[in-house]
Amino acid sequence: MSTTAPRIPRDREHDYTEDMAGRRREFLREQTGASLAHVGRFSVDPGALPGNVENFSGVAQVPIGIAGPLRINGEDAQGDFYVPLATTEGTLVASYNRGMRLLTECGGVRTTVVDDQMQRAPVFIFSDALEARSFGEWVDQHEPEIRAAAERTTRSGKLTYIGQYQVGPLRYLRVNFTTGDAAGQNMTGRATLAACEWIKANYPGGADYVLSGAIDTDKKHSQINMLLTRGKRVVAEAVIKNDVLERLMGVDTTTMFNYRQIGLVGGFLAGSSYNGAHAANGLTAMFIATGQDAANISESHAGITYARLLDNGDYYWSVTLTSLIVATYGGGTGLPTQRECLELLGCYGTGKARKLAEICAATVLAGDTSLTSAILAGHWVNSHERLGRNR
Amino acid sequence: MSTTAPRIPRDREHDYTEDMAGRRREFLREQTGASLAHVGRFSVDPGALPGNVENFSGVAQVPIGIAGPLRINGEDAQGDFYVPLATTEGTLVASYNRGMRLLTECGGVRTTVVDDQMQRAPVFIFSDALEARSFGEWVDQHEPEIRAAAERTTRSGKLTYIGQYQVGPLRYLRVNFTTGDAAGQNMTGRATLAACEWIKANYPGGADYVLSGAIDTDKKHSQINMLLTRGKRVVAEAVIKNDVLERLMGVDTTTMFNYRQIGLVGGFLAGSSYNGAHAANGLTAMFIATGQDAANISESHAGITYARLLDNGDYYWSVTLTSLIVATYGGGTGLPTQRECLELLGCYGTGKARKLAEICAATVLAGDTSLTSAILAGHWVNSHERLGRNR
Amino acid sequence: MSTTAPRIPRDREHDYTEDMAGRRREFLREQTGASLAHVGRFSVDPGALPGNVENFSGVAQVPIGIAGPLRINGEDAQGDFYVPLATTEGTLVASYNRGMRLLTECGGVRTTVVDDQMQRAPVFIFSDALEARSFGEWVDQHEPEIRAAAERTTRSGKLTYIGQYQVGPLRYLRVNFTTGDAAGQNMTGRATLAACEWIKANYPGGADYVLSGAIDTDKKHSQINMLLTRGKRVVAEAVIKNDVLERLMGVDTTTMFNYRQIGLVGGFLAGSSYNGAHAANGLTAMFIATGQDAANISESHAGITYARLLDNGDYYWSVTLTSLIVATYGGGTGLPTQRECLELLGCYGTGKARKLAEICAATVLAGDTSLTSAILAGHWVNSHERLGRNR
Amino acid sequence: MSTTAPRIPRDREHDYTEDMAGRRREFLREQTGASLAHVGRFSVDPGALPGNVENFSGVAQVPIGIAGPLRINGEDAQGDFYVPLATTEGTLVASYNRGMRLLTECGGVRTTVVDDQMQRAPVFIFSDALEARSFGEWVDQHEPEIRAAAERTTRSGKLTYIGQYQVGPLRYLRVNFTTGDAAGQNMTGRATLAACEWIKANYPGGADYVLSGAIDTDKKHSQINMLLTRGKRVVAEAVIKNDVLERLMGVDTTTMFNYRQIGLVGGFLAGSSYNGAHAANGLTAMFIATGQDAANISESHAGITYARLLDNGDYYWSVTLTSLIVATYGGGTGLPTQRECLELLGCYGTGKARKLAEICAATVLAGDTSLTSAILAGHWVNSHERLGRNR
Repeated sequence: MSTTAPRIPRDREHDYTEDMAGRRREFLREQTGASLAHVGRFSVDPGALPGNVENFSGVAQVPIGIAGPLRINGEDAQGDFYVPLATTEGTLVASYNRGMRLLTECGGVRTTVVDDQMQRAPVFIFSDALEARSFGEWVDQHEPEIRAAAERTTRSGKLTYIGQYQVGPLRYLRVNFTTGDAAGQNMTGRATLAACEWIKANYPGGADYVLSGAIDTDKKHSQINMLLTRGKRVVAEAVIKNDVLERLMGVDTTTMFNYRQIGLVGGFLAGSSYNGAHAANGLTAMFIATGQDAANISESHAGITYARLLDNGDYYWSVTLTSLIVATYGGGTGLPTQRECLELLGCYGTGKARKLAEICAATVLAGDTSLTSAILAGHWVNSHERLGRNR
Repeated sequence: MSTTAPRIPRDREHDYTEDMAGRRREFLREQTGASLAHVGRFSVDPGALPGNVENFSGVAQVPIGIAGPLRINGEDAQGDFYVPLATTEGTLVASYNRGMRLLTECGGVRTTVVDDQMQRAPVFIFSDALEARSFGEWVDQHEPEIRAAAERTTRSGKLTYIGQYQVGPLRYLRVNFTTGDAAGQNMTGRATLAACEWIKANYPGGADYVLSGAIDTDKKHSQINMLLTRGKRVVAEAVIKNDVLERLMGVDTTTMFNYRQIGLVGGFLAGSSYNGAHAANGLTAMFIATGQDAANISESHAGITYARLLDNGDYYWSVTLTSLIVATYGGGTGLPTQRECLELLGCYGTGKARKLAEICAATVLAGDTSLTSAILAGHWVNSHERLGRNR
Repeated sequence: MSTTAPRIPRDREHDYTEDMAGRRREFLREQTGASLAHVGRFSVDPGALPGNVENFSGVAQVPIGIAGPLRINGEDAQGDFYVPLATTEGTLVASYNRGMRLLTECGGVRTTVVDDQMQRAPVFIFSDALEARSFGEWVDQHEPEIRAAAERTTRSGKLTYIGQYQVGPLRYLRVNFTTGDAAGQNMTGRATLAACEWIKANYPGGADYVLSGAIDTDKKHSQINMLLTRGKRVVAEAVIKNDVLERLMGVDTTTMFNYRQIGLVGGFLAGSSYNGAHAANGLTAMFIATGQDAANISESHAGITYARLLDNGDYYWSVTLTSLIVATYGGGTGLPTQRECLELLGCYGTGKARKLAEICAATVLAGDTSLTSAILAGHWVNSHERLGRNR
Repeated sequence: MSTTAPRIPRDREHDYTEDMAGRRREFLREQTGASLAHVGRFSVDPGALPGNVENFSGVAQVPIGIAGPLRINGEDAQGDFYVPLATTEGTLVASYNRGMRLLTECGGVRTTVVDDQMQRAPVFIFSDALEARSFGEWVDQHEPEIRAAAERTTRSGKLTYIGQYQVGPLRYLRVNFTTGDAAGQNMTGRATLAACEWIKANYPGGADYVLSGAIDTDKKHSQINMLLTRGKRVVAEAVIKNDVLERLMGVDTTTMFNYRQIGLVGGFLAGSSYNGAHAANGLTAMFIATGQDAANISESHAGITYARLLDNGDYYWSVTLTSLIVATYGGGTGLPTQRECLELLGCYGTGKARKLAEICAATVLAGDTSLTSAILAGHWVNSHERLGRNR
């Protein structure tokens, strides 16, 4: 290779400063000719950013629109919520807002967290299948000690169970934890490492392992997580009244239900991760606004819609998010705009993660009612024409 | 339902103003007690935001770190790049940076866009399967007219082909377009609507359809898109030298390749959308920084890793992203910080979308080399301990 | 290894004789102590078996029950059919028989073959993605010559199209053929080999390939084949009258439709290959009876159920088999009992494969109506108690 | 509908007789003109067939070829086996035979059953998600009573655990059993019914359920069963010596391993149920020969191949069948030819099911080595030309 481009300036001692951020922007301008003037305008204190970013140089300003009120009758989320959505996609806020109005006029959304598991899945590697099976039996027998080793590394996490999956001489352990109000991937990784090290030290003859055997499946969708839950498994449900639907959306519930049959078939045919409308849209906007790890959208957008046409013509609609990963503590939740958005939802800090999960699911349901109605009423493209960017 | 919470203030005439953004924040403070002081600090001009957001109230400030330089020897991307990553997850920038150094020291990344298709997939609904099949034959015979009707709605989009898929009496058409430098979902929706309306008007006896039959699959992962491409199908490849890998990462290529066998098996067992390490992390951070629709991470993170251990001990590593949706025009790309980040990459405006896709793929490869090395060298958890947030 | 067990007797010149079959049975008795007396009782002429089996030693006698009449109003299958089912599973014939009565009393089953493609999918292997993409373009440009080379090897097969799928430096070609009345895997393999050899000889610089790159996916289920068809894609449809359903099955159509919602959700959650009841049961029994390659059940059982509750309370039910591989010529179709069973259906010989496919699909629909009714009416387990083997 | 075709003759009292079988064949000849002369030639006693078939009219004669010897060093299967394969597909027996020779010359196959679970998965249906979750907690608390109720219905089955999966207001219970030497679907159905009835009677307020909620997934492939096992999860492993491979197959282990990379990628890309060569072929032929329920091939063919290229150039090859459903008791195992074939393997009767599972897996490995070698050595098509039917 010819001469390498210069490395980005860094200051070992005082890297998280406005000065260093500015020096990096200046360096980039020299290297590329690109100004980062707007990127350099922020109110967050760089000194607060260790643990959130490296080579800090400024911020992306992502517009926030507010949708709501959305009435939620959940276990943890109760009341009328105004939901912050950080997005650059025209019509998104308007569409979710419309769905929230529909649901609220119909009495609101019930929300329930039905499962809660975060995991790391190491793989133990043996010479043959029999060794791997024997190892699995030993793990079952020593679960209490393994649990103790894992939990020693964390205050809030509890090891719930260890799933085992064998392929040839490989024994995957899917180690499940509750993680309190943190998303918990790091804590789970640390605790699982401790568990693995304990196993390695105590299993007769030792045991080779890799901390991730690719079935966890961190930062990607998978059927295993749709089945067995990753993060929160949360349900949002509502009964949509036919007259309200017709008045607000110009669609009736029978049309909606007929279309559901097509959506179920289409999702199955396509091998899709979600058989509803567009969970990812609202979730991503909430994730960015509230300091969630937005890369988890790859996992969190998965889910299943199940509906019923009731005898009175009303429409029961549920969405189940199977892998919703949210936190109200740690990660980006404490940064200024992110924290404000969590506070707007009454979701900042400890004891709030399930509440946030419920609001996420309710928001998804609102967005799905709105987009589905728009598709069926035929003004879907029109709304993008009117509100969207590419005019 | 009891009294509804009040609706969010809006001004029909002058809604995209600092004043209205401020009034909404004030309203929210009154309703919830939450201050949005930091959210209210932005440099973007609200007047530029129609088409990007509704009920604009301020911005999320997402920290941007820069990783690089990353040498890319692509078709459209050539040179050393500094990649802006908007994230709140500690270690992410450092990890990608480390991978970029590895790849650059090994001579850089080759990148190639191997396919490019955006689609909308309406479903035409018939009484029975024979009618649906006959319809499909008619569509094949009238493709030129359908194409003309579709292309009349767009300057840049070209209809490439119409895939057909039948289930019972349902005939799905998956209408494929090239979309120039826009992501193209809206354009594709508009053009497909025109195509459908032309069909409806001209098919003998008419034809009922819904513009989306749930196999497109917009804002969700699917096997159909992994197979048939959605957005760009782009490959990043590199030959990693064993000595450089050992020096920088503390891992050798044989270990890497052995682990690849486990990753391939694990991804298959789990029913995963990606059998590499963590494409979603880098992509999401790039998407947020450069004004992409971050909800598309649900689709864009999918892909396939294929590797070879070469006779000389070097390691050929390729990652193929099958559904990468990126734009350098439209959507959020023109907003201030977003545009600046595109300009940093030399990717703003027309004729740049493939270049951006190549940089995305190269970045993914860098991140995957780094995380995989960390897992294998055993300092993965440690780096999160040192750099991560939840200490 | 210690001394190896002796090899099975074979006669290079006259291996397909009663004598050699007997000598093998005798050899096996000596080696294992097991008598194969019943296996040795058959009416098939061993001299007819070259091309069907090696080391012929006798036959499995699989009991055949007949179900029907089943009225079919198809394109190729029209009339009342008596369907031979070779099975050892109690209740299977009775259950299909019951479903056939229901469908026949409701006016019969409409059947339609909506697509017909057999394929072999070689992979061409390059040094990098750009080479692979260039190769793909060359293949597109030379499709006529490739087609000619392929079709030179077969009288009945026609190359319909070549699908292309790229992963890294690998370019998969999925070469599609019509195959007349044969299942066509062998013919397709031969023709694809000729195509590949032509490519190899003519592509500038040559091209390495393997004749199967594992996406065909012969003898296994796959999503690609569910989407793009393997063998016949055939639909069976019926309108089930509520009163007939109640009278014969003790279930009403509303219950049926409500359960459909659960089946659709369950199939999606489980990541299943079929979201109906049990296509594999009837198909396997027909396959064994009629000399089909029963291993293809791994592929042929896949499909999708789509239903509608009509305004008058009747129930439209469709099943779409996406990968049904059947033949009325070649393979086992000409053997004595197999041929007789094909003749019973009027399906022996040329020009009959679509008819057989339609009868298969209609039979699947019959079985699904019966089992689903049994599950819902609560006498499912009971019928197995009464008719099944494990009493 | 016009006049219906006549119903098939049946005799309420003495239906399982040669006479009635003959009368049905005669009836069919009258109706269709088709003779069933060969179908009418069998040695099985019709009086033994209640519980295996209804409307018995004769048999399918499926040719049996024998492959072997195959050396197996398993837990339950130990020694050299001659495997009966009932098939009409030319080259199948020859190909498996070739693979068995390879494996035997390399020292044989190790086989291990690593899990064993049969299940029925009822769905309990509630008004909302909270009710469904509460129900699930109650089930956990009452597992001992539920277990007792289930096990009261069976001598050999033991309830191992109840998996729970929630979607909206639906709570799926996946009730797992060991089933001894029976395949166990019927026993599992009966025991699960008893469990459900106990729950219904004891759950405060009662509980609606359907005995199958479509996630079991009986007679179809699914990811849930690949993950969590259905029937036996069994591994076959061998170390293939490079020199033996080259001598017998004309391929070296490095080529084999390189191709493995393609197979893993291809299976992932295609969304396949198996990433080896063709498990279904050998399994189906064994299933038909030994009286297994051949419809289970839809499930049993699923699996995962994992391989390693060893430092000395030898090749470790494992295949894991995740859903192998076999029985040595009940179903068709007691019929004359079927029982003889089981006895040939030393697998008839109680205490033999694991042994049979091991032989199945070893046979699959043999067939996969042979076909893969043939594909790579380029004589795959040739062998079908020489040995196959469609000349």
